[in-house]
Amino acid sequence: MPDDGTANGVGAGDPVVLYVCATCRAAGDPSEPRAGALLLSALREAVAETVSSNVRVESTECLSVCKRPCTVAVASEGRWTYVYGDLDPIESARTILAGIGLYAETPDGIVPWKARPEAFRKGVVARIPPFPPRHAVRIPDAAE
Amino acid sequence: MPDDGTANGVGAGDPVVLYVCATCRAAGDPSEPRAGALLLSALREAVAETVSSNVRVESTECLSVCKRPCTVAVASEGRWTYVYGDLDPIESARTILAGIGLYAETPDGIVPWKARPEAFRKGVVARIPPFPPRHAVRIPDAAE
Repeated sequence: MPDDGTANGVGAGDPVVLYVCATCRAAGDPSEPRAGALLLSALREAVAETVSSNVRVESTECLSVCKRPCTVAVASEGRWTYVYGDLDPIESARTILAGIGLYAETPDGIVPWKARPEAFRKGVVARIPPFPPRHAVRIPDAAE
Repeated sequence: MPDDGTANGVGAGDPVVLYVCATCRAAGDPSEPRAGALLLSALREAVAETVSSNVRVESTECLSVCKRPCTVAVASEGRWTYVYGDLDPIESARTILAGIGLYAETPDGIVPWKARPEAFRKGVVARIPPFPPRHAVRIPDAAE
């Protein structure tokens, strides 16, 4: 159980879906299980360790970010979707859940840049506005 | 009016939202209007030229793909979302609409790789599964 409380913080608010690319391979590594499958397992274990969690981990095929393994996407009703790459298959699971905890505490999914885990700041691949579109009253922070 | 009919083909099926990053700058180019704003205008003009269109063009701030301007995201209810970069601010508008026409004709948003416009094959940044998740009966094509 993490002692910073952030992973448990995901219990609040709307459910968050964490799509995990299970087909990602680490660069030049043909071994099985693949890095993406290892990350998927680590995330499922970490979520199972929380008392309550609104995070739903979904295995998916290819997020088209093959050059930056491992990759995940974070989505939630009415919030921006984020895609992250360059994630360590073992070490990043708790960091990802901590980042999602912050995300889940926001109304729109936009966590202030400096508050984001370093792995999310460096690993951001793209973000997509809420769907269907709404006309926000605030201008989002630039995210890269 | 394009003579290949593809831009008009977007009239079929569920509406497609095209998020266009209006803040993208071409590399090293500080001029205004920005490349992203030019692409936004070109896309709005191209959509306006069609007799009927299910494409809704949405201006957005920063899709976090700043290193690969110009950038857009294509989203639709129940379909995969795609993010594309490296798009020419003027020349790519019709290509983008042609690609969206093919996307709109699919049930899940997955256009066979060889059928996609070259700009979409080379410019794909990421794709995200439909939200909320559904458990597809087929395995999507690898997309990169």
